[in-house]
Amino acid sequence: MEQHTPLNQLRVNDEVQGFYLLKSAYAKTNKNGKPFLSAVLEDAGGSMDAKLWEYDNSTVGEQDAGRIVYVTGTVTEFMGALQLRINALRLRRPEEPVDLAALTPSAPIDADAVLARVWQLVESIEDADYRAIATMMLQRREQDFRSIPAAKSVHHGFVGGLLMHTANMLEQADFLSRLYGPIINRSLLLAGTLLHDFGKMKEFSFSELGLVTEYSTEGQLLGHLVIGAEWVAAAARKLGIPEEKSLLLRHLILSHHGEPEFGAAVVPVCMESELLHLIDKIDSRVEIYRKAFEEVPVGAFSSRIFALEHRVYHHP
Amino acid sequence: MEQHTPLNQLRVNDEVQGFYLLKSAYAKTNKNGKPFLSAVLEDAGGSMDAKLWEYDNSTVGEQDAGRIVYVTGTVTEFMGALQLRINALRLRRPEEPVDLAALTPSAPIDADAVLARVWQLVESIEDADYRAIATMMLQRREQDFRSIPAAKSVHHGFVGGLLMHTANMLEQADFLSRLYGPIINRSLLLAGTLLHDFGKMKEFSFSELGLVTEYSTEGQLLGHLVIGAEWVAAAARKLGIPEEKSLLLRHLILSHHGEPEFGAAVVPVCMESELLHLIDKIDSRVEIYRKAFEEVPVGAFSSRIFALEHRVYHHP
Amino acid sequence: MEQHTPLNQLRVNDEVQGFYLLKSAYAKTNKNGKPFLSAVLEDAGGSMDAKLWEYDNSTVGEQDAGRIVYVTGTVTEFMGALQLRINALRLRRPEEPVDLAALTPSAPIDADAVLARVWQLVESIEDADYRAIATMMLQRREQDFRSIPAAKSVHHGFVGGLLMHTANMLEQADFLSRLYGPIINRSLLLAGTLLHDFGKMKEFSFSELGLVTEYSTEGQLLGHLVIGAEWVAAAARKLGIPEEKSLLLRHLILSHHGEPEFGAAVVPVCMESELLHLIDKIDSRVEIYRKAFEEVPVGAFSSRIFALEHRVYHHP
Amino acid sequence: MEQHTPLNQLRVNDEVQGFYLLKSAYAKTNKNGKPFLSAVLEDAGGSMDAKLWEYDNSTVGEQDAGRIVYVTGTVTEFMGALQLRINALRLRRPEEPVDLAALTPSAPIDADAVLARVWQLVESIEDADYRAIATMMLQRREQDFRSIPAAKSVHHGFVGGLLMHTANMLEQADFLSRLYGPIINRSLLLAGTLLHDFGKMKEFSFSELGLVTEYSTEGQLLGHLVIGAEWVAAAARKLGIPEEKSLLLRHLILSHHGEPEFGAAVVPVCMESELLHLIDKIDSRVEIYRKAFEEVPVGAFSSRIFALEHRVYHHP
Amino acid sequence: MEQHTPLNQLRVNDEVQGFYLLKSAYAKTNKNGKPFLSAVLEDAGGSMDAKLWEYDNSTVGEQDAGRIVYVTGTVTEFMGALQLRINALRLRRPEEPVDLAALTPSAPIDADAVLARVWQLVESIEDADYRAIATMMLQRREQDFRSIPAAKSVHHGFVGGLLMHTANMLEQADFLSRLYGPIINRSLLLAGTLLHDFGKMKEFSFSELGLVTEYSTEGQLLGHLVIGAEWVAAAARKLGIPEEKSLLLRHLILSHHGEPEFGAAVVPVCMESELLHLIDKIDSRVEIYRKAFEEVPVGAFSSRIFALEHRVYHHP
Amino acid sequence: MEQHTPLNQLRVNDEVQGFYLLKSAYAKTNKNGKPFLSAVLEDAGGSMDAKLWEYDNSTVGEQDAGRIVYVTGTVTEFMGALQLRINALRLRRPEEPVDLAALTPSAPIDADAVLARVWQLVESIEDADYRAIATMMLQRREQDFRSIPAAKSVHHGFVGGLLMHTANMLEQADFLSRLYGPIINRSLLLAGTLLHDFGKMKEFSFSELGLVTEYSTEGQLLGHLVIGAEWVAAAARKLGIPEEKSLLLRHLILSHHGEPEFGAAVVPVCMESELLHLIDKIDSRVEIYRKAFEEVPVGAFSSRIFALEHRVYHHP
Repeated sequence: MEQHTPLNQLRVNDEVQGFYLLKSAYAKTNKNGKPFLSAVLEDAGGSMDAKLWEYDNSTVGEQDAGRIVYVTGTVTEFMGALQLRINALRLRRPEEPVDLAALTPSAPIDADAVLARVWQLVESIEDADYRAIATMMLQRREQDFRSIPAAKSVHHGFVGGLLMHTANMLEQADFLSRLYGPIINRSLLLAGTLLHDFGKMKEFSFSELGLVTEYSTEGQLLGHLVIGAEWVAAAARKLGIPEEKSLLLRHLILSHHGEPEFGAAVVPVCMESELLHLIDKIDSRVEIYRKAFEEVPVGAFSSRIFALEHRVYHHP
Repeated sequence: MEQHTPLNQLRVNDEVQGFYLLKSAYAKTNKNGKPFLSAVLEDAGGSMDAKLWEYDNSTVGEQDAGRIVYVTGTVTEFMGALQLRINALRLRRPEEPVDLAALTPSAPIDADAVLARVWQLVESIEDADYRAIATMMLQRREQDFRSIPAAKSVHHGFVGGLLMHTANMLEQADFLSRLYGPIINRSLLLAGTLLHDFGKMKEFSFSELGLVTEYSTEGQLLGHLVIGAEWVAAAARKLGIPEEKSLLLRHLILSHHGEPEFGAAVVPVCMESELLHLIDKIDSRVEIYRKAFEEVPVGAFSSRIFALEHRVYHHP
Repeated sequence: MEQHTPLNQLRVNDEVQGFYLLKSAYAKTNKNGKPFLSAVLEDAGGSMDAKLWEYDNSTVGEQDAGRIVYVTGTVTEFMGALQLRINALRLRRPEEPVDLAALTPSAPIDADAVLARVWQLVESIEDADYRAIATMMLQRREQDFRSIPAAKSVHHGFVGGLLMHTANMLEQADFLSRLYGPIINRSLLLAGTLLHDFGKMKEFSFSELGLVTEYSTEGQLLGHLVIGAEWVAAAARKLGIPEEKSLLLRHLILSHHGEPEFGAAVVPVCMESELLHLIDKIDSRVEIYRKAFEEVPVGAFSSRIFALEHRVYHHP
Repeated sequence: MEQHTPLNQLRVNDEVQGFYLLKSAYAKTNKNGKPFLSAVLEDAGGSMDAKLWEYDNSTVGEQDAGRIVYVTGTVTEFMGALQLRINALRLRRPEEPVDLAALTPSAPIDADAVLARVWQLVESIEDADYRAIATMMLQRREQDFRSIPAAKSVHHGFVGGLLMHTANMLEQADFLSRLYGPIINRSLLLAGTLLHDFGKMKEFSFSELGLVTEYSTEGQLLGHLVIGAEWVAAAARKLGIPEEKSLLLRHLILSHHGEPEFGAAVVPVCMESELLHLIDKIDSRVEIYRKAFEEVPVGAFSSRIFALEHRVYHHP
Repeated sequence: MEQHTPLNQLRVNDEVQGFYLLKSAYAKTNKNGKPFLSAVLEDAGGSMDAKLWEYDNSTVGEQDAGRIVYVTGTVTEFMGALQLRINALRLRRPEEPVDLAALTPSAPIDADAVLARVWQLVESIEDADYRAIATMMLQRREQDFRSIPAAKSVHHGFVGGLLMHTANMLEQADFLSRLYGPIINRSLLLAGTLLHDFGKMKEFSFSELGLVTEYSTEGQLLGHLVIGAEWVAAAARKLGIPEEKSLLLRHLILSHHGEPEFGAAVVPVCMESELLHLIDKIDSRVEIYRKAFEEVPVGAFSSRIFALEHRVYHHP
Repeated sequence: MEQHTPLNQLRVNDEVQGFYLLKSAYAKTNKNGKPFLSAVLEDAGGSMDAKLWEYDNSTVGEQDAGRIVYVTGTVTEFMGALQLRINALRLRRPEEPVDLAALTPSAPIDADAVLARVWQLVESIEDADYRAIATMMLQRREQDFRSIPAAKSVHHGFVGGLLMHTANMLEQADFLSRLYGPIINRSLLLAGTLLHDFGKMKEFSFSELGLVTEYSTEGQLLGHLVIGAEWVAAAARKLGIPEEKSLLLRHLILSHHGEPEFGAAVVPVCMESELLHLIDKIDSRVEIYRKAFEEVPVGAFSSRIFALEHRVYHHP
């Protein structure tokens, strides 16, 4: 397998050769209309701007964003930041083995351990029907559940994002059930939390690295709420679960965005659907702050964050 | 069958005995805390206030709204309007035959003819798949389709309302397909129009007369858009219709309220879903005006109409 | 101390004499313009309609809502519900001892135990400055903190409401700090949670029973967010706490309503202020559901709840 | 008349000389601050990017957008698309004849036939007063009505756009009048539909080719609704039409945007003003989709469409 | 002329006979369905509840609200407030003279003096064209301008209200022109301020006392902004004023509600139209507070004021 | 002191050497990736684009915006506008004296005279308490009050902006108090007007020239409303002013943005807080128009103004 130097270990004047993720690529025009390629390369640990000054259209272009490329070049410095001057660039050939894990941004978690904890919580669901449907759906789609991002960008937009997001929410669902006691139906809340974003497996299109590239047609015509609810309906029918429980579970999924303006197909009208919506909001907010803090120094404000509509303060 | 004098044919001092729909009933308290019953009776052609001055709680009460009662009494006049002084009042007994049609407000249409026209349009759907699903779903639920109201009150809140509403919309769908030609997929638009409110058959609870009394639990947890889309998905699976067509049809149903604020589960993004939303709006608006004009004299304004948030002018 | 029979133990034909909370009182006019008084009595466990048919204006009136009255009368039944026919009614005299606890709706908690747990969490605050300010402010206002409602009606509108509400939120703040680790400043979050509604002690006017009767002038001109922030500023100055920490704490209080439309003086821009807002929302929603479930049978929907703008389903 | 090769017939290396519409022109700066001109040329059938590399400010500039220019140059290819390398560029001289029709994007209709159909519908208006005012206003402004676009860009932004838009709406007005019968005043609806956008003749400024370049001062200070209503008032006075009919017609025009937020001067409160608003919406939506479909391949989504605030799906 | 004792001078047991304004009247039903009339009487200085216990439908009823009635009766006291027990009640006969001024709530101003001041400001308009149109329109409609209310209720809902409102605004327009100097066109601003609400003369229907009873048909179909702008257009044509000035003046009138949501036909885009909107807001707010303070004691809050959407504090 | 030629006196080919304000600076890349600096220079009377073609990163960069630089270069012309070709560029050294006034955009007022007028109005406050607090706070912060801008950009974004803005508002407050008489508490209104934006002294960070560069941390966490209210509370305590007056003054400051959506911490509920909000709006609108008119020729429209959300017409 080809040697790959992680981007965050490169220094000025290093010679580079290896496979990287082509995050984005734009053909631009230089003096006298001479074209060059302005790209961003990414791997698991970071990203770097890159320029190919001798560019003709026959090679890699904008349409290859999200794919893996083989790059040779030299690290330079421009305006205080490292930049890769590309000598040669081509798409990875199918027969070339690469260490995908090393090229792909992924959740900062131990996926095996987190998945085991999810299973533990699923198995702790008291109600046999809710446990059965949660179990069956998780078994069937465990691979996707473990690997897909939870979003294109806003939050958890990396491999393992859905797992990380759902696991954190399950912990909160479990805690709130203990805090408030029997007025919360813990079984319903845990099952709904587990399944609330399953529809994203079909809502998105994914690159070969497992990152979200775009919404699928089904994603745009139905949305992940309806997709997820349809899956629950089918699974419940197959398992012979009482219609009333299937109905409540679909309601949780269909309403978990809280307000119609934010995409809820119906308004939450159960204790558990209100809570599912709010713990979803808590976990996504925490992740947005966590990501922002990676870039914002302590004592400073971020630039405006699109999803929040305001800036964020990284206090000391 | 017991004789029934239509309410709109009664005159002062007429003696009344017969079956009527108890539209509403409220127990009130008179001088010295003496209870009486203040009710509204209804039949196919009109309604009348009624009072039972000697009232004890053992008889008909508020919980019987929507049921058929047997009434004896005398027509009086109060403040310029007719009012029935009730002598005796009891619920209809199961074994007593009544002419339900005579007691129930219903659509001002020839239901047989209109239903035949709907069938004619369904059979004119060019695409075999869309025609098949429209045909199967209409066959299965023809009875409900023909009889249920399209709403509790806002518009078409009478027996046959869904049929009347859908038929008018189908005419418009057909006309627009001819006007704009092949950029509209007529088959998709007609099938979607036919099926867009089918979910109401389950969204509502109905009285014995077929009027809407309340939203069902399923109606409140899922809404008629999702219910209808689920039915389409099931029918399409059974018929082996290509997923892409099933998807488009579900999209039409899920988005036909246009804006999320008004209940759309997803925003319409196809030509046909935009049009379905707009012809739905046209027909419901026309019906709201038609109903208002029944009560507002020419040259006058109505009082504020809740669904429009403004008054309506019945111009000469 | 005068004997008091709890309202929820009364039966038809019981003779009543004792002290009750006059929840509300309206002078109305009967036949021939003869006045009577229509009132609601309340005690810790319930409430009952009451009528005084021989009413002259010299006695208790509308302006006495919220006060304790001495009542004699007989329990009757009207329209299926118990109703008290009052024989005599007067305000409690200052020298008459009453068991206030028995007359006042209060939080369904063991106040001593919950307050001890709050202290335990306050003492667990790691940062000495935040712990000092939390400790000082809680010591100074412990009596009010323990007893005042958190609202006039919406949620926690009973004696001990602020304690119950804050304690539940502190548990969540503690849990989230453990779940997400050091990216949350636990000390700041716990101190802010404890103090977030302290300003309500001055925002409201209270009846002799400790229930909220109205907003105070200060409450309407400043609001409890600004009042609370001013108190924190003063306490921090007195303790010599670094301005930066005082600033963050005031920010948490000023922003805890989340959106300006819902009363936030500033938008939350810190991890901890976002979280404080969301756990406040969780606890108030849970309480609204809990209260609603007391009145709504299992399997039924509530009527529209003002604070939620929708109905609530008490599922099985 | 100078030879003009349609832009959509040009191939690489073709030598070009002729008149084209200068859609837009921006002076930009190249290496070492050397200026060049980046332009878009347009004719009836298409458009093409063009660059003038040897550019000095004395010639054509940004202020000439919308005018006709004489161009010589060579067709090149850049990044997969054709591009014209301009050798020389100047404004058309007044004495030079050009085939304006060949240079101007225009409605895909047979204008003579469509105008004749409009006249036919106008003559079918039953009410003599509404027919008289429609006839007089159409006669007076027939030339503008036939030729102006209905917008700068959003929809029908080409020569003949107003005619195409109005004609489609008249067909719908006619159809709905037949469908719903006498509760719609067909005469009022047809007259209002014909005249609803007449004010655009004065709301816009037009280029020599008849395209909209900008809003006029009057357009910005009054808007086309008020302008159109003023014209109707004047015409009605001249014809001696009863004030009540003039009033209704002005109401239709003033309210046809439906909601104040979308520019309605008053809210529609008549059956016919509601319908006018909705058929305006139908025809503009259909046209937006039609235009989008010209650029979006079957099976793909458009980019976000500003007027709709969402993307559009060109389904198979 | 019949003697009239002002309502605010009556005492308990006074015998009353005279003419009053019947502000409102509702037929209600007493014990055993016996009807009585519940009315409110008003004169220039106050109002009083009144009851006619022996009521038959042949006399005065709800439809007579806004008219003058002849009343005999006795002043009683009920629940701490005065109430008139009516013995007899009939409509004023046409031949009976009454002192209308004494019966009608009117502006607390010296109308002659204020009107003179308005004329002085109109004559001070520097620009001859704006002065001419202001002069002509004020001359023609001086009687209405002097007498009509500026609203049905919200603010200035009394005789002379438009005069009082406009005069206060003219003072502000004059002051701001001096404060900010030549960047404000004083002539345009004063003329626009004078004329901004002229359309209300036709927007409302008035009772015989000159109070607003309802919106007219024209008022509901066009609104007073468009009506006023049409009048200005006509006057400008007659006077031969340059179109540009007429246009600006109409723009001021059409935009003076500021936001489309609040009824502006177009958004203000001139310095003077922005200012007109804001001084309109200032004067209406001041008047709302002034009115509220008449009823709210010092140190207390009003109840919620509909037009402001909040309560108002009458501080010491 | 180094000679400085005002930017608005420079002509083509002038040689330039002297100190200027570096308004902004962006490092860009030219042909072959060669960097250059694109900057804007500013002084009291104007601004000019400037380019440094031989740029290396060791010198002045983006982070120096807002600082004073020493520049040598030659004036050129590009695309019809003057442009400075920079030969050399460096930061001003601390020991170099410069005439700051000549480099800084400042309010078009005589600051001494305007400040004297402010003092005159402050001294005219009738109520001794309000006068005392206004006097003390103005004395303490007179230097900042006289010099800081009232905003970063929107309006009054220049040295002396707060003084100019406040002085104009005080004139209006004084005028309205005279116009409407004793229902306005002139003392409260004048004191509140003076102090309403004091918090901006701490809300912003300022460059060495006194211009706003950014919001301070305190500005973002509390906002200038809360900061200002805290200062008033402290001053009132020190002066022993009655709590009620302090409360009203804080209410004026906290509510002067009018609507929560626009930043008000509480809604204005007093006559004076409503008025303060509206005169704030008047003065800021006038200034926005005044600024726009400096750039927009008579008879033309501005481009869209962000703060107004629309264009502005500079009518003749």
